[in-house]
Amino acid sequence: MAMTPLVCGLQLYVGFTLRVFVNRSVTMEDIQCYGFDMDYTMAVYKSPDYESLGFEMIRDRMVSVGYPHELLRYTYDPSFPTRGLVIDTAFGNLLKVDSNGNILVCSHGFRFLKGVDVHLYYPNKFIQRDNTDRFHTLNTLFNLSETYFYSCLVDFFTRCNRYTNLLKGFQHGDLFMSYRSMFQDVRDTVDFIHDTGILKERTIKNMEKYVIRDPNLPVFLSRIKAVAKVFLATNSDYSYTEAIMNYLLENNPNAGREKRSWRSFFDLIVVDTKKPLFFAEGTVLRQVDTDTGKLRIGTYTGDLHAGTVYSGGSSDLICDLLDVKGKDILYVGDHIFGDILKSKKRQGWRTFLVVPELTKELQVWDEKKGLFEELKRLDVFLAELYKKLRPPSACCVCLQVLTYRMDMSYGQMGSLLRSGARQTLFGSQLMRYADLYSSNCINLLHYPFNYLFMINQTCMPHEAAAQHAADVASAELARTNNTAMMGRN
Amino acid sequence: MAMTPLVCGLQLYVGFTLRVFVNRSVTMEDIQCYGFDMDYTMAVYKSPDYESLGFEMIRDRMVSVGYPHELLRYTYDPSFPTRGLVIDTAFGNLLKVDSNGNILVCSHGFRFLKGVDVHLYYPNKFIQRDNTDRFHTLNTLFNLSETYFYSCLVDFFTRCNRYTNLLKGFQHGDLFMSYRSMFQDVRDTVDFIHDTGILKERTIKNMEKYVIRDPNLPVFLSRIKAVAKVFLATNSDYSYTEAIMNYLLENNPNAGREKRSWRSFFDLIVVDTKKPLFFAEGTVLRQVDTDTGKLRIGTYTGDLHAGTVYSGGSSDLICDLLDVKGKDILYVGDHIFGDILKSKKRQGWRTFLVVPELTKELQVWDEKKGLFEELKRLDVFLAELYKKLRPPSACCVCLQVLTYRMDMSYGQMGSLLRSGARQTLFGSQLMRYADLYSSNCINLLHYPFNYLFMINQTCMPHEAAAQHAADVASAELARTNNTAMMGRN
Amino acid sequence: MAMTPLVCGLQLYVGFTLRVFVNRSVTMEDIQCYGFDMDYTMAVYKSPDYESLGFEMIRDRMVSVGYPHELLRYTYDPSFPTRGLVIDTAFGNLLKVDSNGNILVCSHGFRFLKGVDVHLYYPNKFIQRDNTDRFHTLNTLFNLSETYFYSCLVDFFTRCNRYTNLLKGFQHGDLFMSYRSMFQDVRDTVDFIHDTGILKERTIKNMEKYVIRDPNLPVFLSRIKAVAKVFLATNSDYSYTEAIMNYLLENNPNAGREKRSWRSFFDLIVVDTKKPLFFAEGTVLRQVDTDTGKLRIGTYTGDLHAGTVYSGGSSDLICDLLDVKGKDILYVGDHIFGDILKSKKRQGWRTFLVVPELTKELQVWDEKKGLFEELKRLDVFLAELYKKLRPPSACCVCLQVLTYRMDMSYGQMGSLLRSGARQTLFGSQLMRYADLYSSNCINLLHYPFNYLFMINQTCMPHEAAAQHAADVASAELARTNNTAMMGRN
Amino acid sequence: MAMTPLVCGLQLYVGFTLRVFVNRSVTMEDIQCYGFDMDYTMAVYKSPDYESLGFEMIRDRMVSVGYPHELLRYTYDPSFPTRGLVIDTAFGNLLKVDSNGNILVCSHGFRFLKGVDVHLYYPNKFIQRDNTDRFHTLNTLFNLSETYFYSCLVDFFTRCNRYTNLLKGFQHGDLFMSYRSMFQDVRDTVDFIHDTGILKERTIKNMEKYVIRDPNLPVFLSRIKAVAKVFLATNSDYSYTEAIMNYLLENNPNAGREKRSWRSFFDLIVVDTKKPLFFAEGTVLRQVDTDTGKLRIGTYTGDLHAGTVYSGGSSDLICDLLDVKGKDILYVGDHIFGDILKSKKRQGWRTFLVVPELTKELQVWDEKKGLFEELKRLDVFLAELYKKLRPPSACCVCLQVLTYRMDMSYGQMGSLLRSGARQTLFGSQLMRYADLYSSNCINLLHYPFNYLFMINQTCMPHEAAAQHAADVASAELARTNNTAMMGRN
Repeated sequence: MAMTPLVCGLQLYVGFTLRVFVNRSVTMEDIQCYGFDMDYTMAVYKSPDYESLGFEMIRDRMVSVGYPHELLRYTYDPSFPTRGLVIDTAFGNLLKVDSNGNILVCSHGFRFLKGVDVHLYYPNKFIQRDNTDRFHTLNTLFNLSETYFYSCLVDFFTRCNRYTNLLKGFQHGDLFMSYRSMFQDVRDTVDFIHDTGILKERTIKNMEKYVIRDPNLPVFLSRIKAVAKVFLATNSDYSYTEAIMNYLLENNPNAGREKRSWRSFFDLIVVDTKKPLFFAEGTVLRQVDTDTGKLRIGTYTGDLHAGTVYSGGSSDLICDLLDVKGKDILYVGDHIFGDILKSKKRQGWRTFLVVPELTKELQVWDEKKGLFEELKRLDVFLAELYKKLRPPSACCVCLQVLTYRMDMSYGQMGSLLRSGARQTLFGSQLMRYADLYSSNCINLLHYPFNYLFMINQTCMPHEAAAQHAADVASAELARTNNTAMMGRN
Repeated sequence: MAMTPLVCGLQLYVGFTLRVFVNRSVTMEDIQCYGFDMDYTMAVYKSPDYESLGFEMIRDRMVSVGYPHELLRYTYDPSFPTRGLVIDTAFGNLLKVDSNGNILVCSHGFRFLKGVDVHLYYPNKFIQRDNTDRFHTLNTLFNLSETYFYSCLVDFFTRCNRYTNLLKGFQHGDLFMSYRSMFQDVRDTVDFIHDTGILKERTIKNMEKYVIRDPNLPVFLSRIKAVAKVFLATNSDYSYTEAIMNYLLENNPNAGREKRSWRSFFDLIVVDTKKPLFFAEGTVLRQVDTDTGKLRIGTYTGDLHAGTVYSGGSSDLICDLLDVKGKDILYVGDHIFGDILKSKKRQGWRTFLVVPELTKELQVWDEKKGLFEELKRLDVFLAELYKKLRPPSACCVCLQVLTYRMDMSYGQMGSLLRSGARQTLFGSQLMRYADLYSSNCINLLHYPFNYLFMINQTCMPHEAAAQHAADVASAELARTNNTAMMGRN
Repeated sequence: MAMTPLVCGLQLYVGFTLRVFVNRSVTMEDIQCYGFDMDYTMAVYKSPDYESLGFEMIRDRMVSVGYPHELLRYTYDPSFPTRGLVIDTAFGNLLKVDSNGNILVCSHGFRFLKGVDVHLYYPNKFIQRDNTDRFHTLNTLFNLSETYFYSCLVDFFTRCNRYTNLLKGFQHGDLFMSYRSMFQDVRDTVDFIHDTGILKERTIKNMEKYVIRDPNLPVFLSRIKAVAKVFLATNSDYSYTEAIMNYLLENNPNAGREKRSWRSFFDLIVVDTKKPLFFAEGTVLRQVDTDTGKLRIGTYTGDLHAGTVYSGGSSDLICDLLDVKGKDILYVGDHIFGDILKSKKRQGWRTFLVVPELTKELQVWDEKKGLFEELKRLDVFLAELYKKLRPPSACCVCLQVLTYRMDMSYGQMGSLLRSGARQTLFGSQLMRYADLYSSNCINLLHYPFNYLFMINQTCMPHEAAAQHAADVASAELARTNNTAMMGRN
Repeated sequence: MAMTPLVCGLQLYVGFTLRVFVNRSVTMEDIQCYGFDMDYTMAVYKSPDYESLGFEMIRDRMVSVGYPHELLRYTYDPSFPTRGLVIDTAFGNLLKVDSNGNILVCSHGFRFLKGVDVHLYYPNKFIQRDNTDRFHTLNTLFNLSETYFYSCLVDFFTRCNRYTNLLKGFQHGDLFMSYRSMFQDVRDTVDFIHDTGILKERTIKNMEKYVIRDPNLPVFLSRIKAVAKVFLATNSDYSYTEAIMNYLLENNPNAGREKRSWRSFFDLIVVDTKKPLFFAEGTVLRQVDTDTGKLRIGTYTGDLHAGTVYSGGSSDLICDLLDVKGKDILYVGDHIFGDILKSKKRQGWRTFLVVPELTKELQVWDEKKGLFEELKRLDVFLAELYKKLRPPSACCVCLQVLTYRMDMSYGQMGSLLRSGARQTLFGSQLMRYADLYSSNCINLLHYPFNYLFMINQTCMPHEAAAQHAADVASAELARTNNTAMMGRN
């Protein structure tokens, strides 16, 4: 059955904020199975309302367990945090790093540290990211509110003159508050909010305010299901999944006349997946009784019935149930580690990363790409200066200013993906592990289902150099020939 | 003191086989310390003579411990193995994989498996590289001879009709020879050859035949030492290091009139480094008595004297002794894992990977880049076909043929760095961990010591798309304007 | 100050059920600090009421999440489970093992397996206890109710003819219920009951029913505090600790006229200790605000004030705060692993294990020790038979019958500490790690505080043999002499 | 077939130095398979000649690699070291500890530290044995020479006034020699001596001097083989095994008239076993070509032929080949960890520990058991003093003196198995893991093959107390009755 894309296939005509971008070529015709995460993938939360809600819950709980009331004055500022930042729990700093652990940006509370100050903390401007006991990477959009709240904490205690600033925390009379214990308190609070379900409860009560419902979602899933198998694999529990998916699909204005269960859009639904464990040994697979929302005791061993809901399991079990192999699956998720890196490295799945921030990133890039061009020109100029053995100091300052200006266009912490000319850890992971990425999974709708997502073949540095040398030579040849020809004329 | 490079600084004029290539910009002016590995870095072994020597030692030893005499008929064939291949000890296959574990090429003995056959072994055409108990990556040039010998073994037993072929090995009467035990025997043999020192002995006896002596090495090191600290850090023991470095530097025709100890070229010499352990906790640091070649008992605690030789230690100790920080060091080595990945990830050093194969890689690329261009054109054509919903099967065959032709230009296993349009594991590690790379460390001589190695800033796919859209728009605008203008005319 | 014990010091006069038993000599005069666990140490729960309560909560919750209603018919039977049993989650068996993993008793549900049947599951009658993924040891009195409930589950499904018995679980139509998943469900349910605090709530509401209040406890603690430092270290949270300790000490009829806070009995109180982690790296130490029950933010760094309550921390921190060393501390607890083994092996503390079951064990022993004597005589007889090369089969049967009769005197699973002549895992751990043990910590009151708990020095087998040989020889000598003397008369 | 033991079966008549001692009853009739280690089990090395040889080789090599020539003055002193001591590589001390890590004896070089001095190093008189990076336990008789040599080293440098004593080592000008690096040097030297085979070479050259040949060994093995399967499992290589076993069995004066291969005494011979790995995952099993001594390539898969020699493998493979289960095997070895603990804990085998030191231990015990009796009496007296609240200080000194006198009867480090009344780590491991033990494996010959090794059933402390109370009561009753009866008369 030939599919008609909503928007015609010529890529040029897809507005670039709606596009799917390609790190490794994917022939959609070969994809026999689509898997989706739910949170921030199917269900995108409204920013900054949702993050504000999370922030306030953390803040209020922290105050209620004894943190100073002055903290209540802080409100969520979406311009500050980005995903992929690293908290150094020893010194209370927030770090933006590249894939090798080199520090790109460092803030202490809301104060951004200059190079010399960064050196005081990190003599080599470098961290050993493997030390996960000390360094915590905030990989998901759910982490934005805690990232921001932790900065508020550091900001407050640093400024408050009741507290003395020490290297590893604050002293107040007989009391020592380490950055580490403050981080632990924030983590415990976040766990409390998730475990008690109070954030979910508030979300469900006010769906319109917190969850984006894309009117095209029913059409999108129907079309996929017509050509391939479809599954949902979420770490959320069944009752929340039910509430969210019901809102997205059954109550969708575009849901169509005939009432259709949201579960009928999927061949298989798996909740409580415990990703990333799901992509390794997994847990026991249980069937969910969709009437009561409770787990059936025992494990279902019969044939697959469409729309059946399971809890737990593993990616291997899912492949068995759906009778597909890793390479046949395109898995769509928002979690660079739990969804994308793990499914790629452990199982060899095709991956599609949803990056909601991309809409803004593209916008800023479009407006400010002049800065990047300038940066490139300055690089070349700087290289020339070095070749001519001239002191390049003024030029370096220029570079820093440009990088800073470029960063500031994105927000206080700069872009999710780069700092000036350098790529962030998140950016490099996106390029390594996500075959495709886009601001929204529904953007797949703009492409026919037998589309070939093709990378622009790039050369390695030595190949490019060889290429360049050849081009120059042939240009030279052409010039000579031309001259010769001209001479002839 | 201003340095005059042997070859003038404008990069264009450095022949591209002599160039240093850049993955991340490095300002040489900031480098205060140069570190060098010895084997395949300072001392490049002559290929294929040296690999042949290793191969024969392995082969003869294996026969002497009981493997069939028919194996003596095999000789080393440099056109077969490349670095970075993976041995699957379960099935006896040699694999070329990309950074995510997807299989690019698979051979069994000398037979290259077709897609369908690969699927029989690996249903997902994918391996979990983390399973190091099963999969062994052959990262160094020293591994070439054993890689080849293992293929000879598999080839022999597969063809020999005394043996029955089973999935995991060969049966011969009551005897079962698993691929795994054969691999273990090869490893044990290689260890025997290294531990007994017989390979080193043969090498030292015939230096001219096995070791390349670059006449520029003394000049190169002298120049570096004039502007920065220099150290040698090798896993070899002292006596071998002494023999090799003496040959390279003291017996060098360009060594200069005044007799100068090879040790005087270095501020610090460390042998028995046990890399990669050296970049982590390391071992006890001992001083070597250069008269006897024996270790001094105890650890030296005084000031650093130039040319002192140590054994063991760790990268942290070296930084202390030389009073430098990780970012100040450019470390030059040939081992992608032990030298480059570890010094970069654990210590944040600047890294320079020596890739002797690069000379040939560049040569082939230069000759055959037409194939790559064709590959790119075919990709575009294929994408167009998909957009127009036409069956692309013929085109796919073309792609495979082109990829195969391109691979064959490099050797039977194809390029070290790519397979058609896809990058190998080795290639991707080179790009991630080596700031600079070149076919020979001495190529640094072609650049002034305050050179800025600058990367060509690249855009991420979404940025490139935005760029492209803008270009098209402005081209369109220009066209319109032109037309308008033309209309005006 | 000389202490007058409640009961005079001559050990003989302490009824043996009130005694403290000795595995390694302890000079009480050297003990400078007493530490106590709370649950089952200070606060002993009334058996079987408390276990019944736990059992019913587990049972009801399991039924409410979907397990068959028929399970409601089961009630707690205190004669079945003992501490220290091992669940084999693969086959659903309950095992009693010795310290080396040899199986002493094996039940499947309530059916006790005979030797041949045990061999079917365990060909070597042996388990590798290290495999903690498969084998779960139920070390605490809290585990009794789940131990029993798991046996009820296995019993029910084995008998119910709706289910087919398979090696690793039960099949019911399309549903497979593995022993492993059933065990997981029980564990999850127990966690639910503890995490939600519903068991604690019910306990607090009906203290009289569930908690034994020893009238001597205030006197006991006062006396100790007069001669040494005293601390409480419990894994329970503050509010539960407050409720329990208040009941035990402040509402105690013997509390004395003057109202005295329970906290004043201790120099230091630590809740949320997370033992066994507490004896290793521990967690952050926080102060508890005893007015609100909430944690103070930050860590207290000042001097120690008596009765201050902390949360978390580690044994090292406690030693620092109290200024004592490991050997100065006698730690009294009921958890063989979390309290006793860890404090002994990691910290070198003196240990006192509370074994409430000991009252009954001693009672049975007293009544049935004739059986043990008989067992010993039978052993000797058997050995004689072997020496005389006679077939001992009838005798072996006798031994089994005797062992069975002895076991049955204790309960269905036999004694906590032995099975016939062989010691259980629990028994051997008690002897290795507990310096002292008793049925109740308050039994220490029967001894003066400068008492010397002395072991009866025992010989190793070869020493005993040498001893015996000497005794025989001297007896022989004596006999000869006697005869001689008699002859003289 | 009924066996006639060489010595009649009544245990009393077996001289106690020839006896087998029992920790757990073993019915020999059930043993279907006997396994033997070779070194120090079948082949007992002559003490102190063999240890002296090892000592001299270590000493000479250390001097030849640069340690001071004065060390050559040291000679081996068998009265100093015992097995089971622990080296603290941080402080250079030699420790004798109990099973929980409490320090019993501590020497620095040859100086024995008093209590206060021990406290300076170990404030709690306790070590965390788990820290195997710091603490090395010297478990085998092979370790005696290095134990002694390490003490010589510490002794020399401590006394030599060229060196300054520091906490962690010695300073000499610019050179620091840590205790840790000195320990590493000794270990490396020992490895060198074993790897190069020079110790084995010297042993083989002078068998009479170094190896005890028991004339009864052929008879012993023949008798066992008549009733059970027999295997040899040694970590030694084939050529050494061949030399030793040939000397023990073929050249044995009692070997009998007909020439019989030593291999014919065994059903299976396994060399290169790599115990303790052998009792876990093991290595590849290879057949040894007994003509050439080389490994056959491949793995033998056919039936078992008596006397076949294998290399590698694992205990599981051995059970398969011999068709026996763990409980059917009695494994006889001298290595408490590699042979006994591992085979018992991982595989549930029956175990027999050979303790050559036992001959002397028994001799000393026999002579000095009066001291132990005195110790026991003093204990009782001390306990009485405590009860009567009298200062026991003089008595404590007495205890220490007695303990010291008892220790000195065994040697400078005291007994292998105890220190005064307390058991060593080695002693407690012997009791936990060895079912049987004896000074020589051949002592089994003194028992019929259907013997029942029976433990003397012992009571736990609380059982003994109950027993005692009952005895007292019945004695009291008897006395009363007697009195009554007497009254009647």
